Amino acid sequence: MAFSGMMAGMDEDARIARWTAGWPAVPGVLRGPGDDCALAAGPPRGCVAVLKTDSVLEGVHFTRRDPAAWVGRKALARAMSDFAATGARPVAVLAACLLPSGGKSGAYMDRAMAGMAAAARRWGIGLAGGETTRAPVLGLTASLYGWVERKTAVARSGARAGDVLCVTGQLGGSRAGHHLRFEPRLAEGQWLARGGWVRAMMDLSDGLGKDLPRLARASGLSFLIDPEKLPRRRGVDAVRAVNEGEDYELLFAVAPERIEALRRNWPFRTPWTDFGVLLPRRLKPETGGIPFRGYDHFA
Amino acid sequence: MAFSGMMAGMDEDARIARWTAGWPAVPGVLRGPGDDCALAAGPPRGCVAVLKTDSVLEGVHFTRRDPAAWVGRKALARAMSDFAATGARPVAVLAACLLPSGGKSGAYMDRAMAGMAAAARRWGIGLAGGETTRAPVLGLTASLYGWVERKTAVARSGARAGDVLCVTGQLGGSRAGHHLRFEPRLAEGQWLARGGWVRAMMDLSDGLGKDLPRLARASGLSFLIDPEKLPRRRGVDAVRAVNEGEDYELLFAVAPERIEALRRNWPFRTPWTDFGVLLPRRLKPETGGIPFRGYDHFA
Repeated sequence: MAFSGMMAGMDEDARIARWTAGWPAVPGVLRGPGDDCALAAGPPRGCVAVLKTDSVLEGVHFTRRDPAAWVGRKALARAMSDFAATGARPVAVLAACLLPSGGKSGAYMDRAMAGMAAAARRWGIGLAGGETTRAPVLGLTASLYGWVERKTAVARSGARAGDVLCVTGQLGGSRAGHHLRFEPRLAEGQWLARGGWVRAMMDLSDGLGKDLPRLARASGLSFLIDPEKLPRRRGVDAVRAVNEGEDYELLFAVAPERIEALRRNWPFRTPWTDFGVLLPRRLKPETGGIPFRGYDHFA
Repeated sequence: MAFSGMMAGMDEDARIARWTAGWPAVPGVLRGPGDDCALAAGPPRGCVAVLKTDSVLEGVHFTRRDPAAWVGRKALARAMSDFAATGARPVAVLAACLLPSGGKSGAYMDRAMAGMAAAARRWGIGLAGGETTRAPVLGLTASLYGWVERKTAVARSGARAGDVLCVTGQLGGSRAGHHLRFEPRLAEGQWLARGGWVRAMMDLSDGLGKDLPRLARASGLSFLIDPEKLPRRRGVDAVRAVNEGEDYELLFAVAPERIEALRRNWPFRTPWTDFGVLLPRRLKPETGGIPFRGYDHFA
């Protein structure tokens, strides 16, 4: 697949050379940029393919004041966070770039793509290909391909009434910088999935107030949370912790009889906290007085 | 994977319900929209995974005067055309939507997504998932996943000096409507690949004037074309046939000793035409006086 698309100008080849440089050689990528399609190895025995697309757009997910390298990293990290919630292993990414003409957009996108490549080196993700389109707004869509063991792939829908609600890390404060610098909880999500620790899991991208109702609804359940127990960043109150969004932490449901074993066996430095419980659907959601933006969708 | 993203408003669930309706049930899609990631079956024995991302953007690839259903179809068909050039079989698509707030954008996108679903039904492609982002411009990025036999996957780079240059269909006239209504040459591309008829292939998205040099360069070759033999739509001169772009026809290279057998065995109604030959790299490209400038949306 070429970084081709609808680009004018003679500098296209030079741009493609810059954007495809610095990516790691990944065995799963059988044919990277340069042809109409990319080829990737199929999932190993017992695994299935995993797909996710995610965008970052100027004015929505970043501004030009944000360092470009972090914006490129974020485009990849957002999709990584979804892979984490599935317990999946990312292999290769397609990058679709929206590029305004003129100004400093080209230089900004160069730095963004270099930032994505640097993050991909660290995470061992190959470049499958990409595309560039002239646009009135700068943006990056990352489409991630990978694998997961079919038996251990986690969904939002497996929770049962009585399961304990847990979340990694701390909530809130994303606009202060976390929305760019968050670490996708890939190892944590894979470990939780493979060990069969969780019955349902998702990543928090729109905020607990919107995402917890989604998980509960997918599982056909209601929920109760204790706002006092919500892990919050310094200076963040419970309302913001629930509703600010872009936490990119893992929200997961654990069978109550396994919660102590999970606590004993957890091998990561990343903390996690239990803060509530899933309830039968007939009960009203109980948020301890904290407004949940997603509440109306849930009713 | 949810159609989630950064959408405000109470009608999000209703929109997701509309956009995910009407898609065919495809056995390869193991888990469609509704979770953080989609799951798809891995490629069958002897096959590898195929990936392609492609965007259509308002003001670049369509205007609001174009029927929305055709715009949605085009977003999918562009990626299908790349699959055709690889000889690959599409299985599932992720749709990333850019949606302006207010006005008639929501209704337009509803019709575009319905058009994509209708095309997907015809082509047997499942919906893996998607995402929606508020944006200043309306757009659709389709990321296509599928399979190809590893041995028969075609690239741009396999041509040899002396190979005959061929193209399906007719060139030019895309702005008169073909850019929306083109038929991806999927069956033709798969047949050419599986039969080992072609040494190199690509789809013509930016016009022969830009794409033929890419194929030649990828194969380390030069080329010669006979402008008289170029298949053109009625009323299209050779300069436009070469440079208008958005033909979405297959450009392919055939060993000279196989060209007559190909002519005898070709089982499709779609015509193809030989119009040139690949030359050793040391020779200058010879275009018969036709300027090769490719496609430039911004000229």
